[in-house]
Amino acid sequence: MRIGELAQRTGVSVPTIKYYTREGMLPAGERTSPNQVRYDESHVRRLKLIRAMLEVGGLSIAAVREVLVEVDTPGGTVHDMLGVAQLAVSRASAERGTAEERMLAEREVAELARRHGWNPAKAEKNPGWSMLVQIVTTYRDLGQGEMLVLLDRYAAAASELAAAELAVVGEMGSTDGKIEGVVLGTVLGDAAMAALRRIAQEDTSQRVAARAESA
Amino acid sequence: MRIGELAQRTGVSVPTIKYYTREGMLPAGERTSPNQVRYDESHVRRLKLIRAMLEVGGLSIAAVREVLVEVDTPGGTVHDMLGVAQLAVSRASAERGTAEERMLAEREVAELARRHGWNPAKAEKNPGWSMLVQIVTTYRDLGQGEMLVLLDRYAAAASELAAAELAVVGEMGSTDGKIEGVVLGTVLGDAAMAALRRIAQEDTSQRVAARAESA
Repeated sequence: MRIGELAQRTGVSVPTIKYYTREGMLPAGERTSPNQVRYDESHVRRLKLIRAMLEVGGLSIAAVREVLVEVDTPGGTVHDMLGVAQLAVSRASAERGTAEERMLAEREVAELARRHGWNPAKAEKNPGWSMLVQIVTTYRDLGQGEMLVLLDRYAAAASELAAAELAVVGEMGSTDGKIEGVVLGTVLGDAAMAALRRIAQEDTSQRVAARAESA
Repeated sequence: MRIGELAQRTGVSVPTIKYYTREGMLPAGERTSPNQVRYDESHVRRLKLIRAMLEVGGLSIAAVREVLVEVDTPGGTVHDMLGVAQLAVSRASAERGTAEERMLAEREVAELARRHGWNPAKAEKNPGWSMLVQIVTTYRDLGQGEMLVLLDRYAAAASELAAAELAVVGEMGSTDGKIEGVVLGTVLGDAAMAALRRIAQEDTSQRVAARAESA
């Protein structure tokens, strides 16, 4: 198909398609004559993947580019891709609290990891680890330490979900499909979990409010 | 304390403190003489809450302001606050897919809600609902419909976690504490869950990779 049809099918404008190609995020089409370039289904799919990461996943263009460079590197494993996708969706945030508060929070996170059978040596290089240290420091700093009991519940749920997620990815046929599954699972999985938390929280809160009124 | 000490204790600069006050996010201090204003512990706490929402929760200034206006409105219930906090942390995203694809996705989400005993009439006004329709449309659009089986796992986990979260908030002493708990629980809870998912996913993926190597 020509670039106009590609634009129409994917909802991505022609200038944006050209921009993605220049940036190496979309492979160039096949030049069939001096002023004609052909695109195929692989381009449709790639543009849809880019849109999903940008619009549903909320990633920056830079983060999407980083993920795609890795996806396009031959020989990458599913495990490698998970690391890249995780880094891309993880927002770096400024360090909070004093050195002592951070040390205490790090110890707390290490104990949490041990309780759930996670290998802390590995976990320390994981973006989730520093995010969690920030969160623990923040809860403590604001005197909301009661909420930390929830971390064990979250951790147990995360363990169960990770096993289910990896199982689904493992059953996918091709390596390309698996890699795309990991990218989408990481990027959209966070969004899906957040969305479901909103609905479940409102439903639960509504029941609690209704009970309080009728009491 | 004076504004300089307030800045030092909270890590928020004097010009930023003045900006937050002008914007109505921080109550003005008490003027004790023509050129001296006193601040107290409530100001320290409020600035820490603002920093947490901005830096750890990743909210925009506009979203933080919206939440705080609601927090400061007398007579707000914990259930009201949950709604406001949820809207603030939910990123609106462009509609995806054709009208037909969206209708199918909406039906799928409604069925999911019914399976988990959620009241769909309520849920439709919830930001999670439209986020989820986007996600379902995206998975289908990218031919990754296999991943949709995970939504039931996410939903079951979200239900369990919501009950635990509301229980923790319910046990908090003061209404102010409860409202702050809901705000932080919503804003930081998403981040905590995302962080724990990273660690659990890497741990699980590492085990799978290790088994594959030794096989």
